[in-house]
Amino acid sequence: MNSFGSIFRVSLFGESHGSSVGVTCDNVPPGISLQEEDFEKDINRRKSGRKGTTPRIESDIPIILSGVCDGVTTGAPVTVIFNNENTRSKDYSMFRDMPRPGHSDFTADLKYNGFNDIRGGGMFSARLTVALVAAGVIAKKICLPAVYTANIVHIGGNENIEEELDNVLADHDSVGGLVSCIGKNVPAGLGEPFFKKFEAQLAGIIFSLPAVKAFEIGSGVKASQMRGSEHNDCFISADGKTETNNSGGTLGGITSGNIIDFRVTFKPTPSISRPQNTYSFNKKTRDNLVIEGRHDACLTLRTPAIVEACAAIVTADLLLYNTIYNYRGKHNDSQ
Amino acid sequence: MNSFGSIFRVSLFGESHGSSVGVTCDNVPPGISLQEEDFEKDINRRKSGRKGTTPRIESDIPIILSGVCDGVTTGAPVTVIFNNENTRSKDYSMFRDMPRPGHSDFTADLKYNGFNDIRGGGMFSARLTVALVAAGVIAKKICLPAVYTANIVHIGGNENIEEELDNVLADHDSVGGLVSCIGKNVPAGLGEPFFKKFEAQLAGIIFSLPAVKAFEIGSGVKASQMRGSEHNDCFISADGKTETNNSGGTLGGITSGNIIDFRVTFKPTPSISRPQNTYSFNKKTRDNLVIEGRHDACLTLRTPAIVEACAAIVTADLLLYNTIYNYRGKHNDSQ
Amino acid sequence: MNSFGSIFRVSLFGESHGSSVGVTCDNVPPGISLQEEDFEKDINRRKSGRKGTTPRIESDIPIILSGVCDGVTTGAPVTVIFNNENTRSKDYSMFRDMPRPGHSDFTADLKYNGFNDIRGGGMFSARLTVALVAAGVIAKKICLPAVYTANIVHIGGNENIEEELDNVLADHDSVGGLVSCIGKNVPAGLGEPFFKKFEAQLAGIIFSLPAVKAFEIGSGVKASQMRGSEHNDCFISADGKTETNNSGGTLGGITSGNIIDFRVTFKPTPSISRPQNTYSFNKKTRDNLVIEGRHDACLTLRTPAIVEACAAIVTADLLLYNTIYNYRGKHNDSQ
Amino acid sequence: MNSFGSIFRVSLFGESHGSSVGVTCDNVPPGISLQEEDFEKDINRRKSGRKGTTPRIESDIPIILSGVCDGVTTGAPVTVIFNNENTRSKDYSMFRDMPRPGHSDFTADLKYNGFNDIRGGGMFSARLTVALVAAGVIAKKICLPAVYTANIVHIGGNENIEEELDNVLADHDSVGGLVSCIGKNVPAGLGEPFFKKFEAQLAGIIFSLPAVKAFEIGSGVKASQMRGSEHNDCFISADGKTETNNSGGTLGGITSGNIIDFRVTFKPTPSISRPQNTYSFNKKTRDNLVIEGRHDACLTLRTPAIVEACAAIVTADLLLYNTIYNYRGKHNDSQ
Repeated sequence: MNSFGSIFRVSLFGESHGSSVGVTCDNVPPGISLQEEDFEKDINRRKSGRKGTTPRIESDIPIILSGVCDGVTTGAPVTVIFNNENTRSKDYSMFRDMPRPGHSDFTADLKYNGFNDIRGGGMFSARLTVALVAAGVIAKKICLPAVYTANIVHIGGNENIEEELDNVLADHDSVGGLVSCIGKNVPAGLGEPFFKKFEAQLAGIIFSLPAVKAFEIGSGVKASQMRGSEHNDCFISADGKTETNNSGGTLGGITSGNIIDFRVTFKPTPSISRPQNTYSFNKKTRDNLVIEGRHDACLTLRTPAIVEACAAIVTADLLLYNTIYNYRGKHNDSQ
Repeated sequence: MNSFGSIFRVSLFGESHGSSVGVTCDNVPPGISLQEEDFEKDINRRKSGRKGTTPRIESDIPIILSGVCDGVTTGAPVTVIFNNENTRSKDYSMFRDMPRPGHSDFTADLKYNGFNDIRGGGMFSARLTVALVAAGVIAKKICLPAVYTANIVHIGGNENIEEELDNVLADHDSVGGLVSCIGKNVPAGLGEPFFKKFEAQLAGIIFSLPAVKAFEIGSGVKASQMRGSEHNDCFISADGKTETNNSGGTLGGITSGNIIDFRVTFKPTPSISRPQNTYSFNKKTRDNLVIEGRHDACLTLRTPAIVEACAAIVTADLLLYNTIYNYRGKHNDSQ
Repeated sequence: MNSFGSIFRVSLFGESHGSSVGVTCDNVPPGISLQEEDFEKDINRRKSGRKGTTPRIESDIPIILSGVCDGVTTGAPVTVIFNNENTRSKDYSMFRDMPRPGHSDFTADLKYNGFNDIRGGGMFSARLTVALVAAGVIAKKICLPAVYTANIVHIGGNENIEEELDNVLADHDSVGGLVSCIGKNVPAGLGEPFFKKFEAQLAGIIFSLPAVKAFEIGSGVKASQMRGSEHNDCFISADGKTETNNSGGTLGGITSGNIIDFRVTFKPTPSISRPQNTYSFNKKTRDNLVIEGRHDACLTLRTPAIVEACAAIVTADLLLYNTIYNYRGKHNDSQ
Repeated sequence: MNSFGSIFRVSLFGESHGSSVGVTCDNVPPGISLQEEDFEKDINRRKSGRKGTTPRIESDIPIILSGVCDGVTTGAPVTVIFNNENTRSKDYSMFRDMPRPGHSDFTADLKYNGFNDIRGGGMFSARLTVALVAAGVIAKKICLPAVYTANIVHIGGNENIEEELDNVLADHDSVGGLVSCIGKNVPAGLGEPFFKKFEAQLAGIIFSLPAVKAFEIGSGVKASQMRGSEHNDCFISADGKTETNNSGGTLGGITSGNIIDFRVTFKPTPSISRPQNTYSFNKKTRDNLVIEGRHDACLTLRTPAIVEACAAIVTADLLLYNTIYNYRGKHNDSQ
């Protein structure tokens, strides 16, 4: 059930070294302009090639298979695929013997009884986030005028990103990072009580991304050290705006019209060039594992477009869900 | 769609001051012993009455409406309700004029066009977690031998809980807290790639709880400051055990057989006895709001049983989901 | 997953001889007047007591547990239960030895490994349709001004119902029947392409009812013998009205604004007073089974209110679903 | 939400004259051999080209985009697409003026506010059933040793199909038909009480097909004229086999291990060569419509492979669903 969302539903498919990765978006409202070039900006923001990212560079050309006619959405499911081109036929089967620490090799092999596509992590690869970003581009159109902007706060605790990358690369190591995301013009009223709270949906999709270790909204981890008198956001005007924003933009799990404010912690890329002393299932003892090939020294660098996509997908879904409250049959007449 | 889970599905209903709150659990396997007294222990752990919790005490007697025959589950949906008894008929309509800071009053009124049950927060009340704990009791039986144990790490940053409560009560204030949860014997292989990762499901249900501001797994927020060489958990044995547990028990979103380790940050109870200067929608200006009545000074105190319930629900759902991988038709013979 | 519907979602629970049967309806729009007495008319139409129906008479008093405040829906899930009162403690365990022909005894025992509640058919009992009718009452309010009317066409092929009942009762037998349902004022545009076609949803819920053997829409089984030139419904006016109605009110699975017209075939009640020569699992040979107790000679008599409930539930669900097409964000401005 | 199924979930996308049509199958168990040539047989059975079918012939070459590695399923979603090749750029916009009787032109235009892809019926085209057949091929592998076989009973009431086709073609008309489907070796125990009854799922997916007007199981429409003593299927052996099969293979909505036996009525193809006097929305009066182009004189001819696919999809879904009843944690030890 590789899907997210109740109305604006996003379903991913594909593997890192298979023929392509793709996404189907259900319930895209008809009449939205959508063309291949619309994806370019966000796809490029996610792309590798910069310092600290993998030299595996994909052309990442979106191909719209369905749901668009004459450059406009039709109301039918929109499927977009990206062909995988820059794959290498190196042998990944060694990772069934020595599963890479911090990777899905061990758990995927076990879960799928050895039938999983282990090449490049298969279905577990961050490669699938290119399709998620594509869904995000569509979601962003639905969300307007709500707009999300994600930025890197720091990597490795250092706010000088260039400097930190130089250090990490010199050490043949990798490093984690923190991303902040702000949502403006998100209308009040989005989210459902209990299981579909705005932040519950957001946390759910964010933790679907590879390498996420923490999600915070508003005051976040600091809330545990705060008093109520300090944490409460007092209302200041008739549109529900508050003096402070410890809530991060929701009350009772429903957006309040204040700024959405959340943060995501990414772990360091598990693939590092240094040898790692881990377990060999064949030899039945520990051994040194050396991972060759291409990888990001800091995957956080590529995540802002992905985090924005997640927020836009949640918002589009709940916006469409909310239209049911506009429903007025004749029932009022009968009362 | 007040439901969580794909197979072991939990659906909540009820309001704080309505006649009852309840839960329906779908796909409870037949043959599990289940009686009203099984709920007692966890329900009591959630109960108020201790220092720092509300003097509203509910008898919280579970009534099994369906799905159990002669003390054993039948395979049919299990519905359990708790009647609300200790409700007070005080006027909550003032909170449509002056919505309480940090509460759902403003957003719920707006979302439901004023038709929401505002008494005690209605559907948004933490009262519903009594039904969630009941679902957790059932889930815990399904999960065995996996067992979750949640504990309060600190409240207000102070690990001396009694002392901190005395301070907070003396100040007529409330305080946040941090809860840690450990899962032992959780089998490897739980979780699905991308949107149903173990931690994605866990984060989703945890953020469904009222007052949650952060969720961390394994290294959590510290991961952003770590190097890969430090963060990677090297395997030490053929069962997938690792030397360290920065992952918190999952790899690629799938449980690895290591200990599940996550933390939840709760904000301070928004209801405080002190006057708060907030907005009056009737007067169209700011005014002092005084909240009378009964509330928890530290809602965190009541959450460990709730957090465990969430973890057990996710685990039960993914355990049942995983049975599909046991499916072996005759397809292998035909190849 | 005892649920039906994507937006207006109906979830049933309870057993024939358990404490109660009930239903939870999700996404009931807020602001609809709803009181216990609203259920009376349809509940009574489903009731037994007339000639040809079982002498087990339940008081069938609806109890609203949630989702209604001051006689108006709040937007929260609406749960309604009916306590079972007129149950008899007779021994049903004999039906594990000799499962009744035409009943669920054999399949339920096998499926649930003997843990199913076999008393009165448990979860498989037509008793659950009282809860479905309650959901239908709510759905009917949402659907207005669309109105469904179901009627018995014949029982046992005889359009003189009283006469046929007399014959059947004299024979200590039971009899099947045909019910027709007409929907007026159903707006055009309901239904989704492929899997959520209007008639696909309708057929799905109708076959969820016990004892259904056929579902036909419009021309129904006669369509197989017709020519296209005869079957096609030509349009006659700008609102899409057609000269004939072989389609039964949908085109491409989407309502056209014409009258919805479908028929349901019910089998004869499987419980009959005559001895039946069937298999004894204990004796490992065939034996005569005599079913004592109370049953309907013609269950069809009680179905019109149930069939209407099904149609209203489908319509309410698709009406609410359709509100997403009303969604207009700012995306048009940005094009 | 263009999906069917709870576990083995089938999601369709694509339009008749778009770039391709496709299907994503979720939860295909890992380890099943799957190659492009496996689709050939059923795809060919659905193909046009024979007498009475459209001269639009598609090469229908399946392209597996995901979920298969080295000819074996991996456990990841399986996506298969078919590129559309034999499309004609003729002007379909005339059907917004004069919607074809019996087609989706009118309802789709209305529902999607004119943004639907009207070329060849777009998403509503029977073209999508090629993707459904592909899903059926996968489902059939999961279902083994259960096997479904569908056959045409008659077209236009005539069991001499060749003769009837000659008549119809001579008349420049089209004709309906009846298809029967038999399922052997379907294990007992499939189906869930109430909303996921075996026949409810089956009827739901069958009515998702274009042109279906009736669905009958077992005794079908004849049940309304039968007595209970005649309709009941008495058990004859310890494996639940029955003397007769009026039930059509289910009891209480759960398969009994007897033969699955159902029938589907298809209407005549609505596109006919004869002029039809219908409504012109531009002229605001009735006018003669002449439909040019390629179409099936009897679409029933192409449906047996599609009907089998539907049955196999339902069966695969419920087989996988049923694995949850195999779940045995340690809960029994704790009782």
